[in-house]
Amino acid sequence: MSKIALLGVGLIGGSIGLALHKLKTPPQVIGYSPNHKTTARALKLRAIDAEATTPEKAVTGASLVILCSPIQAIHELLEKIAPALSPGAIVTDVASTKQQVVQWAAELLPDSVSFVGGHPMAGKELTGIEAADATLFQGCTYCLTPTASSTEVALQTVMNLVQTLGANLLILDPAEHDGLVAGISHLPAVLAALLVRTASKTATWHDLSRLAAGGFRDTTRVASGSPIMHRDICLTNREAVVRWITQYISELEEFRSLVQAGDPGIEKVFVEARQVRDEWVAQRWPPADTKR
Amino acid sequence: MSKIALLGVGLIGGSIGLALHKLKTPPQVIGYSPNHKTTARALKLRAIDAEATTPEKAVTGASLVILCSPIQAIHELLEKIAPALSPGAIVTDVASTKQQVVQWAAELLPDSVSFVGGHPMAGKELTGIEAADATLFQGCTYCLTPTASSTEVALQTVMNLVQTLGANLLILDPAEHDGLVAGISHLPAVLAALLVRTASKTATWHDLSRLAAGGFRDTTRVASGSPIMHRDICLTNREAVVRWITQYISELEEFRSLVQAGDPGIEKVFVEARQVRDEWVAQRWPPADTKR
Repeated sequence: MSKIALLGVGLIGGSIGLALHKLKTPPQVIGYSPNHKTTARALKLRAIDAEATTPEKAVTGASLVILCSPIQAIHELLEKIAPALSPGAIVTDVASTKQQVVQWAAELLPDSVSFVGGHPMAGKELTGIEAADATLFQGCTYCLTPTASSTEVALQTVMNLVQTLGANLLILDPAEHDGLVAGISHLPAVLAALLVRTASKTATWHDLSRLAAGGFRDTTRVASGSPIMHRDICLTNREAVVRWITQYISELEEFRSLVQAGDPGIEKVFVEARQVRDEWVAQRWPPADTKR
Repeated sequence: MSKIALLGVGLIGGSIGLALHKLKTPPQVIGYSPNHKTTARALKLRAIDAEATTPEKAVTGASLVILCSPIQAIHELLEKIAPALSPGAIVTDVASTKQQVVQWAAELLPDSVSFVGGHPMAGKELTGIEAADATLFQGCTYCLTPTASSTEVALQTVMNLVQTLGANLLILDPAEHDGLVAGISHLPAVLAALLVRTASKTATWHDLSRLAAGGFRDTTRVASGSPIMHRDICLTNREAVVRWITQYISELEEFRSLVQAGDPGIEKVFVEARQVRDEWVAQRWPPADTKR
């Protein structure tokens, strides 16, 4: 990895750039953003070593290209860089959905380059290069979704990147990935945004906002994430998102019946949820780990 | 407030006790808990000055009695303390729902004492005396729901308590309170528990749990709160909780239609939610305030 191109240097791209610069022998990192101010800031923060004014220029001579743009911008980026990629170049991405992206890569990239889909399960409600953080990926799960066209060398290279970032590798089929993240990541984002919407659409929002406390803040935190990212997630993972919403609605309806009936069995729902969550938290962030 | 009785010394009762002991001239605080270990621990942590073995003994001679038990235990506590309360004593509570509690107080307390319902909008996902914190109420909204039977002296005394705790007073009608908190506090708790339930009921929970990250953790945080508290909230605020769940389901259904149709209008939902939430956070926790 002597020369790496980052197409997109916001929260995720910027954090990758910062992490790569912590290496003993950092690669040369070229950054591209449609917004010049972003690359200028990334240069200043030393997330990148040089800026390119076009995606084509950024990938010229790069052995590894990392697509860090919003999902729907990936299609155009792939079209643009396809003719400019060096033979043997390896391309990966960080998008939250994988089926659509691997399909675009298969359609648009030449046979001389290899694509490995990727998705680090890390983020913040803050967006942009200012929120970038070299430690963002430490301890996170980083999914790779290699396909028939991913060469062994390409997979190994991207696996090395995952390790370099301090993340834990999880290899999944693209469709399996999309079905799972729709439940554990996309559904929570939808729920958070709709909770804000439900409360703020009422005539009583002024009073509600005074009563809203830490519980509301945390339950809705992901609603402060990038709207473009959330839109693209929903549009490129429609079937799975709809399936999880439907499942969730049926849970809500079942619970509503319990409340309507004044059924003390309500307690069991809360007991089980707490137990599952506490076990998960303890496993994911062991007590000794201060990152919780 | 020379002698104060705390009936219940868990997270909320314990925190009140700790905060009272920060005063220059602290009142004498008597604690009661059905669990002797809890009062013993509260004594050791100096949340209380003495423990009483029965609620009746705790309130004997107390000028202010604060009910800090789970909601459904309040009925029995009121029955027990009614004959033991000193004439002129003031009784308040900290329960998350108010209509049921003020009704019980009206039914069970003698005319010689005055009741003022209260509800501090503060909490943690941790429960019990070990989680108690003298600063828990600082900056929080503390609702009081006085009724016809609340005397002016009683209201003033409980308002002083709210100020002492560093909280911001909000006076509401009990029914109005219950309708509002059902949306801004009870609904989020239900959503969080059902998100854990929806994910963990699937055959893929093992994989989901590996992919679950900070978004899932925060969206579900309140699901780690006390199941008894959540059960009692739902059972004593049924109508409002059902109404908010129904409203939320209709938002989910509308959103699901947008996703099914691949409607780019999805973006507007996320843009608006982010804007509303960011404005609320900025107002509630101004940037200079490090408690965010």
